[in-house]
Amino acid sequence: MTRVLILSKHSEEYLRLIQAAKLPGLEKLAAATNPSEALARGDDFDIVFGEPCLVRDVLARLRNLRWVQATWAGVELLLAPALRRDYLLTNARGIFGGLLSEFVFGYLLQHERRMSERYRAQQEERWDNSLTGTLHGKTLGLLGVGSIGVDLAATARHFAMSVRGFTLASESCPDVDCYYHGSSLQSFASGLDYLVNILPDTKETHRIVDASLLEHLPTHAVFVNVGRGSAVDETALVSALQTRKLGAAVLDVFEQEPLPPGHAFWHTPNLLMTFHTSAPSFPTDLARLFIENYRRYIDGRSPLYAVDFKKGY
Amino acid sequence: MTRVLILSKHSEEYLRLIQAAKLPGLEKLAAATNPSEALARGDDFDIVFGEPCLVRDVLARLRNLRWVQATWAGVELLLAPALRRDYLLTNARGIFGGLLSEFVFGYLLQHERRMSERYRAQQEERWDNSLTGTLHGKTLGLLGVGSIGVDLAATARHFAMSVRGFTLASESCPDVDCYYHGSSLQSFASGLDYLVNILPDTKETHRIVDASLLEHLPTHAVFVNVGRGSAVDETALVSALQTRKLGAAVLDVFEQEPLPPGHAFWHTPNLLMTFHTSAPSFPTDLARLFIENYRRYIDGRSPLYAVDFKKGY
Repeated sequence: MTRVLILSKHSEEYLRLIQAAKLPGLEKLAAATNPSEALARGDDFDIVFGEPCLVRDVLARLRNLRWVQATWAGVELLLAPALRRDYLLTNARGIFGGLLSEFVFGYLLQHERRMSERYRAQQEERWDNSLTGTLHGKTLGLLGVGSIGVDLAATARHFAMSVRGFTLASESCPDVDCYYHGSSLQSFASGLDYLVNILPDTKETHRIVDASLLEHLPTHAVFVNVGRGSAVDETALVSALQTRKLGAAVLDVFEQEPLPPGHAFWHTPNLLMTFHTSAPSFPTDLARLFIENYRRYIDGRSPLYAVDFKKGY
Repeated sequence: MTRVLILSKHSEEYLRLIQAAKLPGLEKLAAATNPSEALARGDDFDIVFGEPCLVRDVLARLRNLRWVQATWAGVELLLAPALRRDYLLTNARGIFGGLLSEFVFGYLLQHERRMSERYRAQQEERWDNSLTGTLHGKTLGLLGVGSIGVDLAATARHFAMSVRGFTLASESCPDVDCYYHGSSLQSFASGLDYLVNILPDTKETHRIVDASLLEHLPTHAVFVNVGRGSAVDETALVSALQTRKLGAAVLDVFEQEPLPPGHAFWHTPNLLMTFHTSAPSFPTDLARLFIENYRRYIDGRSPLYAVDFKKGY
């Protein structure tokens, strides 16, 4: 028998969805929206489903903990050295690829089609039929080719783009035309029209997008960050945009969130910000993942998307 | 032996591309950017490759005319009752599907992701992380499922949308989930999230998007016109947008182009205009089509994309 804690700002919706699934072996199912409410429900939970920022604060207190299903893809908050690692941690994958594909290609098309300039012409009552660009034949570079990268590569292929992938080692995505590893980061960057970061936050990926990488991009290139803010040297990015050494940037994530008032990004030219909304978490999708993994857990089968504490993803 | 006239604002680029192809059987190859320049080159051309608006003005004078390859998809200018029809007319198809797919889905994603609102937040230094929508599970209605519709349906399928197709008769596209014909136009419209018009300009399609059709769309629906301006009752569309009976519209084509000053569209809410730029004509693509059709013509094989003068497309 299992004792499950839902610890999330969406806990009521999750509770409803999980109850509706009539899961086998449930001895206790409690829902809380914050850590103190959670601990008031007990400390004997063996399974927790929730946001890493909330789960972190109850981790030390759950004496029977066996498994945490995170509702996020990024779980670095649970990987701090001081925190316990004696449980199974699974993150949210296989959910955000489609959403991030919509986000990334929405902004790529927004850029090619010069939607902002076209709208400005409309406001000025000006018939602006100047030519716009196309994704066809352009080159996309993926920093990271995990489950999200695979979806982005498929969409790039659909729009007849070339795709380069920079990864630690794996080369398993059929829609990536060419792989790069380790020290070949600069040749990976040379000639890219678009660079998209989807790397997890690890020691190796910290500020991987630095002045040197940005210098190797063509001056018309567009950088999109939907991974983690820590992957970017923000000062170098501001400088590249201000000196027109980079065409544009679309940032969904930042070193500090919310972005503080006065940060240079607020007034950097050719920079669009989307405030960590690129992959909205729809509770039905995440509840479906939890339910699938719960059944696997109960049956003793391998879970989907187990996190390797050493690798950090 | 053939005598070929290139009559286009891009005639120099076409001339270069066609010369490079070293086509067989060419007795004469001339290039002109306007009708009088063209007629100064002679009246004995049997093949013309060019823009319908220019070709129309030399049509009556070419005594040996056998074949016209139009550089546009829309050839209604050449179908006026007073004009000759004793030649083969082929139009530009199989080229614009990918470009229109980029355009349509760019604007669909712009809408779902509320890019304009997000940009406004950025300008106000406001961290706006409100949820946005997704194309996943939404329903797209295609008014017309020709070669362009097939490409749009494939992209809709890629983004996990449902697709309805309204056509005269054909039902051959595998990515269309459900077909509608003739009098079922209103049930076709009911429940659509997005309606995209790609119909050619014919008697049957004149003002097909009228007050009645618009009333059957949900109030959140978005209408996109990349077909012909004549397909839309512009007054009814303005009214639907002003009274919030329609969510938004994206118009690339208009009854009168350029849109005249003072037209209501310039100040209609939730209306975006793109000034007939949705499918830019890249000379290399069109030259490739001409070269392919020329080889077919010389070999006596069926040409690609012959226009039926009676049907009008």
